[in-house]
Amino acid sequence: MKNTLPQFYSVFSIDCVLFGFDGGELKILLIERNEEPFKDWWALPGNLVAQDESLDESATRILYELTGLKGVYMEQYYAFGDVDRHPQGRVVTVAYYALLRLSGDKTPKPVSDFAKNAQWINVNDVPKLAFDHQKIYEKGLEKIKRRIKHQPIAFELLPEKFTLTQLQQVYELVLGKKLDKRNFRKKMLNFGILKDLDEKQKGVSFRAATLYKFDKRKYTKLFGKEISF
Amino acid sequence: MKNTLPQFYSVFSIDCVLFGFDGGELKILLIERNEEPFKDWWALPGNLVAQDESLDESATRILYELTGLKGVYMEQYYAFGDVDRHPQGRVVTVAYYALLRLSGDKTPKPVSDFAKNAQWINVNDVPKLAFDHQKIYEKGLEKIKRRIKHQPIAFELLPEKFTLTQLQQVYELVLGKKLDKRNFRKKMLNFGILKDLDEKQKGVSFRAATLYKFDKRKYTKLFGKEISF
Repeated sequence: MKNTLPQFYSVFSIDCVLFGFDGGELKILLIERNEEPFKDWWALPGNLVAQDESLDESATRILYELTGLKGVYMEQYYAFGDVDRHPQGRVVTVAYYALLRLSGDKTPKPVSDFAKNAQWINVNDVPKLAFDHQKIYEKGLEKIKRRIKHQPIAFELLPEKFTLTQLQQVYELVLGKKLDKRNFRKKMLNFGILKDLDEKQKGVSFRAATLYKFDKRKYTKLFGKEISF
Repeated sequence: MKNTLPQFYSVFSIDCVLFGFDGGELKILLIERNEEPFKDWWALPGNLVAQDESLDESATRILYELTGLKGVYMEQYYAFGDVDRHPQGRVVTVAYYALLRLSGDKTPKPVSDFAKNAQWINVNDVPKLAFDHQKIYEKGLEKIKRRIKHQPIAFELLPEKFTLTQLQQVYELVLGKKLDKRNFRKKMLNFGILKDLDEKQKGVSFRAATLYKFDKRKYTKLFGKEISF
């Protein structure tokens, strides 16, 4: 690498794209930046990678510092390296994502001064984001849209027993569009991956809906189709 | 980023993992390095990203400089960032991969002095590699193993008309194991994705085998199974 500096000088960062479903809304975790550039802007939780940490370690640390969240399993999905993506120099960022079922203990709160606020925000209300974070976020959204069509992630976001209305809502939120109720139910039931529990919703005064459970064995058989030897 | 240097100083690089099938063998494209560190070692074609190029542009340039190959569509698949992966400092590398059908015009020849040799090498004869390139290569191999079970890439590596023996060979090479002939044929034919061309191999003196074609429509129907609305 001799003689290659400053031509190859650069820094790299991590950005975290966390989607959360709270039973009613699909949300994305954002911070309000407390530092230049883009001070006071909304952004994905992200910061520079330190010299002594691996990318995975860095992602875990950064998420914790900026949002207080711990123990979230994130997966690396893409490195963004457009030349002009950062106004202060060349910064390549490695993006990580996760899709979570939100419960009370997932309330975010920054630990470091780098962020002055952290919040789960409805994906329909995402504000203008710093840097190229809109692009990074959209690629993350594409990723979960593809996954929900091929993998049983919808079921990980629901309680063990759920109604078809709840299931449809998860699909509509992730795919970002209304689905025809009759068609959705027909398709879902035809796949044969739902177990009718012969049990109704409780605590509902009128027209309690049937509860279903996800039949993982059948699901795997249907969608895990592969040429295996 | 003020006051963050030198803590966050780093460089990043691209490494290319190109697999090639020449009709008989599965090969990987390697170079012999002409520069320190790891001078004279075999390595993946890889080098540092310049300040004025995006990651995709860099991958294309580096592959060309080190191997002479052009027009290869590569996909980014993972960023490797272990702290000690490079002996001279922190270097995060973004890996790209491709799987090609090799023909005469894919003979590699370095354009830059950085490599003194470039060669397609049988995956069973991969020498000791520089840096963490063994790990990068293995993750690339896993990637194509998963893909060959879910996507029609095996067929892209074969001529339009092929025999079941040729098809089995591709699977055996990519999966790295012998498959039972009878079982393989039964499974493949049962999938209903092969079109019997009612035609025999030509230029074979004895026991000419039946030629098949890939039925893309049926394949898509079978493996493209997804919950689509």
